Amino acid sequence: MAADSFSIGVDFGGTNLRVAAYAPAAGFLETIHIATRLQAGRDAVVADMCAAIRKLRDRYAGNATLKGIGVGSPGPLELPEGRLRNPPNLPGFDGLELRAEVQRGVGERVVVENDANVAALAECIVGQGKKLGVDSLCMLTLGTGVGAGIILQGKIWDGMNGMAGEAGHINIYIDGPLCGCGSRGCLEPLASATGVRRRAKELIAAGSAPALAALEKRSPDFTPREISELALAGDPSAIQIFEEVGRALGIGLAALVNTLNLPLYVIGGGLANSWNLFSPTLFEELRYRSYVFRMTDPDQPATSAGSSARTYIRLADLGPEAGLLGACILPFTVFPDGN
Amino acid sequence: MAADSFSIGVDFGGTNLRVAAYAPAAGFLETIHIATRLQAGRDAVVADMCAAIRKLRDRYAGNATLKGIGVGSPGPLELPEGRLRNPPNLPGFDGLELRAEVQRGVGERVVVENDANVAALAECIVGQGKKLGVDSLCMLTLGTGVGAGIILQGKIWDGMNGMAGEAGHINIYIDGPLCGCGSRGCLEPLASATGVRRRAKELIAAGSAPALAALEKRSPDFTPREISELALAGDPSAIQIFEEVGRALGIGLAALVNTLNLPLYVIGGGLANSWNLFSPTLFEELRYRSYVFRMTDPDQPATSAGSSARTYIRLADLGPEAGLLGACILPFTVFPDGN
Repeated sequence: MAADSFSIGVDFGGTNLRVAAYAPAAGFLETIHIATRLQAGRDAVVADMCAAIRKLRDRYAGNATLKGIGVGSPGPLELPEGRLRNPPNLPGFDGLELRAEVQRGVGERVVVENDANVAALAECIVGQGKKLGVDSLCMLTLGTGVGAGIILQGKIWDGMNGMAGEAGHINIYIDGPLCGCGSRGCLEPLASATGVRRRAKELIAAGSAPALAALEKRSPDFTPREISELALAGDPSAIQIFEEVGRALGIGLAALVNTLNLPLYVIGGGLANSWNLFSPTLFEELRYRSYVFRMTDPDQPATSAGSSARTYIRLADLGPEAGLLGACILPFTVFPDGN
Repeated sequence: MAADSFSIGVDFGGTNLRVAAYAPAAGFLETIHIATRLQAGRDAVVADMCAAIRKLRDRYAGNATLKGIGVGSPGPLELPEGRLRNPPNLPGFDGLELRAEVQRGVGERVVVENDANVAALAECIVGQGKKLGVDSLCMLTLGTGVGAGIILQGKIWDGMNGMAGEAGHINIYIDGPLCGCGSRGCLEPLASATGVRRRAKELIAAGSAPALAALEKRSPDFTPREISELALAGDPSAIQIFEEVGRALGIGLAALVNTLNLPLYVIGGGLANSWNLFSPTLFEELRYRSYVFRMTDPDQPATSAGSSARTYIRLADLGPEAGLLGACILPFTVFPDGN
């Protein structure tokens, strides 16, 4: 990376559109926040995006070379084409050639990625990966769903057409709750905000969770945070919900650790705030179900015959800006030097 | 690869030691088969290996440049060090510095890999991967256990210390049968030769499988092949066993397809001979549990908005020589050109 190059990153969300100019040494140079005008249609959204990119380019291109444009978008996406495929959170955007349209709108080279993947890239390059000195990781983002991104040797692993990292759909319980993907018992309906609310409603319906029932009465749209407050106050049903989240995560992480043998797995997203509530059962299942983890457990001393390799499970280091940061970093990881 | 370079590969098994000289254009130049003298101890085995390597080197090094030595070994292995760690099938070999000792014994550069990984490499470079024109795959070898190897962009994915590809320990049923790794319900005890025999014995003990009971009576050490013969003759219990193998494989493959999004998954090993018996339930579970597979199913036409990317599940193309072939190919994938 030349010291005098910069990039422009776009964090394209269903609600907000955030665009930033970024230089590796300086961080964000300037950020533009606008609302995503979904109602105005896809052409208007792409036009807003391109206008913000051009504005930042015109402001910074005098002093530095533009490395390229990185866009983090909700999926599913066809990659490297950057084509949206029936994105559930962007109604009307099916088939949008996002990469080609932004490229046409700004006349610069553009790379499009899944939003979970760019967040993972940011964690790798400037977050927990940098802290631990590793260049590969898998990040699970526990939000409305469970997103995942895999970084191998400093680059996003897209798989053959951009669908890698759908680790939210690893099966945990064969007859578990129905998932949006059509299967049952995936990680997603067990370890997402949606899953936590669903489980609370089940316990309320079973009549065995008076504190949760009282919560629902005073706050019908209760959040995982409110359930976590009950758990921290000692309510057994609320505690059970997070213990179950930890078990599901531990079983899912075991599959990832056994298959990928990466040095780092990062847990992010809103539900990650309840780490203290779910991590004990997470580690219990992970130790039980992954001998690879047991042999590389950071809490165990290396044996004489053993390697010093360690498998770290960590909370995300970056906050909600991870997506925008990752979109800005992306052009530096995919475009060759010399521009 | 220079046309005039060759390699020497070693397939190090608990019973047989096979060493070959190999050139990419010509294939095997010569193969040496000897028994693995486990009883004589590790020094004797390494000495036998080195003697065979030196013999082949001295015979072929006059006409071509030796690219390097590749060794496929039973695991677990620390990589890239090539150190054995408590290998269950090589008693007394714990801690053996296999790479360093062979390098010292022959004075050439040596690369050591897991036997499941080199078989996967061979399938990628000269087997099913070549046939389909893809450079990434995951291979599951259904033998006594379930081995796995992952090839990404033409190279073995080792993970951080050589333990990647332990996909045999992906969890399928949380309370399933005990696995050698200490967990329960891993793919290995469900889709291996050992697992098939265990399941047959369970059905015999339950008194509901007269044909299997008769088989055990006349052939106490009955094999999966004998069970498959009963299944092909229509015995419902034998058919059920292979249907269960297919379900477990389908659930495990769904986790791999969702996580890795590779173009090809290869099934090898002795149990793969029963493909016709287990593949219907395999595909049933895989389609149900992986929307990534459903979107890239080779048996479905690409949709208009869709990608042409396809996820192939195929039987291994190479036979038992895959391990030796992969060991021979290995030096060409890891040592830079120009010797």
